[in-house]
Amino acid sequence: MRRATWVGSTIVVAGPASPSLAAKLAEALEARLVEVESKLFPDGESYVRLKGGVEGEDVVIVQSCYQPQDKHLLELLLLIDTAKDVGAGRVVAAVPYLAYSRQDKRFLEGEAVSGRLILKLMSAAGADGLVTVDVHSEGLLRQAAMPAVSVSAAPLLASYLASRGLKGAFVLSPDRKREAEARLVAEVLGGEHSYLEKTRDRVTGEVRTEVRRLPVGGRDVVVVDDIISTGGTIAKAASIVKAQGARRVVAACTHPILAGGALERMYSAGVEEVVGTDAVESEVSKVTVAPALAQGVRRLLKLSRASL
Amino acid sequence: MRRATWVGSTIVVAGPASPSLAAKLAEALEARLVEVESKLFPDGESYVRLKGGVEGEDVVIVQSCYQPQDKHLLELLLLIDTAKDVGAGRVVAAVPYLAYSRQDKRFLEGEAVSGRLILKLMSAAGADGLVTVDVHSEGLLRQAAMPAVSVSAAPLLASYLASRGLKGAFVLSPDRKREAEARLVAEVLGGEHSYLEKTRDRVTGEVRTEVRRLPVGGRDVVVVDDIISTGGTIAKAASIVKAQGARRVVAACTHPILAGGALERMYSAGVEEVVGTDAVESEVSKVTVAPALAQGVRRLLKLSRASL
Repeated sequence: MRRATWVGSTIVVAGPASPSLAAKLAEALEARLVEVESKLFPDGESYVRLKGGVEGEDVVIVQSCYQPQDKHLLELLLLIDTAKDVGAGRVVAAVPYLAYSRQDKRFLEGEAVSGRLILKLMSAAGADGLVTVDVHSEGLLRQAAMPAVSVSAAPLLASYLASRGLKGAFVLSPDRKREAEARLVAEVLGGEHSYLEKTRDRVTGEVRTEVRRLPVGGRDVVVVDDIISTGGTIAKAASIVKAQGARRVVAACTHPILAGGALERMYSAGVEEVVGTDAVESEVSKVTVAPALAQGVRRLLKLSRASL
Repeated sequence: MRRATWVGSTIVVAGPASPSLAAKLAEALEARLVEVESKLFPDGESYVRLKGGVEGEDVVIVQSCYQPQDKHLLELLLLIDTAKDVGAGRVVAAVPYLAYSRQDKRFLEGEAVSGRLILKLMSAAGADGLVTVDVHSEGLLRQAAMPAVSVSAAPLLASYLASRGLKGAFVLSPDRKREAEARLVAEVLGGEHSYLEKTRDRVTGEVRTEVRRLPVGGRDVVVVDDIISTGGTIAKAASIVKAQGARRVVAACTHPILAGGALERMYSAGVEEVVGTDAVESEVSKVTVAPALAQGVRRLLKLSRASL
């Protein structure tokens, strides 16, 4: 592999939430890996320590913020602050799953805009840039005080799905807002794509999905979403296409958060397989986002020191 | 009660970790209480919403950061950010138990200085001042970018102990660093006080307490500390004075964190009663810190807007 000119002065720090992804990212970037000692004190406080020097180097801290989100987030902020404090050059937060990104604006009076605060805290801790994967809200990243990019895991998911015999499958996004991912996956699989309209009641939290006629009779269907949390949205979409005669239904997502009972909920609705990435380490993380993350980090670090 | 001049433009916000203490503080300050709606999303993310307006008012957010520390801390940061964002005037964080305050400097290479980061995050969220109770490290507060004061719960604990028949008891601090609290309690109880020397191995975490001859034979002893976490330090001190003939041993602290098995550990060592405050809501929180907290808030809010 050809060494890019910026390589050699980059360190990848393996946050406690993403040790194996960090190792893959270091390999992709040909960067040195610094491990982290982490523990929990008996009273419940977190402790982190960088196990190697980072002075004067560009540092990429890999720490996904899935459950427990607040603990993972605090560990991330501690690592950013520590790296800066011991003399790191630029610090990039590589946060495949950005916690709280669904709360990107105030829907009800007095509500916290949590997603925006998370970005503010990362900047305050000392982050000079952020790379995330398939952020739920691109608008949120534009509110960041630092350069922030979201890379797509869709091509990586699509390659995996193709290898699982899903070429030509019909690709469905269960929410119009995520249509772009469905289109990207459909381009690789060579089939068509469409979306369903989903509406959420901001007070009750209740979600309604429209039932629409789709050309899925006798065909394989891939339902693609960014996050699978309770699995309810995917289950609803699966029921709709199953009722219209779909053959095999596979669910694919970047972030398999999988709140309690999510897998069972989807399987009961006729989903045959669930495919996720290691943006969130789970039992369905079959695809690594390391190549996409590496691309995002390269893009950020190529920006001049001044603009970072 | 005479209304102080600054009253009437102050709001106390009841953070989810300290609703009853917030109500008591609002009463002590004759301030309006604004409640908070809080919930946990199925995926584990926290949600908070101010249930009343705070525009143009000085706002005191009461939220102690005991276990789960990271969740309580994030809720605090969200409330500070939200209050500022919807137009509050000055925002004071009233955080009786300040999580991570024991990690106030770097002991080993590469370690996070967590206590300092917490202060930085509060400032970044928008806090203009901080009031805490019996902070573990006064030096930590001097590193804050905002005015930060620690008030003492010792006189309140002492009054309670006096009412429990402990006048004239010998007061012992199990750590020289906390001697000041022991002196304050002894002044109210009218007895003498002393301390033990405690040393901690920074790598293994092992704690050693010196055994010293003390005038405790046939007397009641109050062991006073700022935080009771595992109860190990108190248990050790209780064993020492019990072996020297102490009669009744009572443990008193501001912050009853009480990690698993702490109470049993202390009772087994001969402690008869454990007394804590509502700085940390626990089964031994028999004393409220509201009067001390109110004093701290008054002190902060009397500072001019410019200096806050």
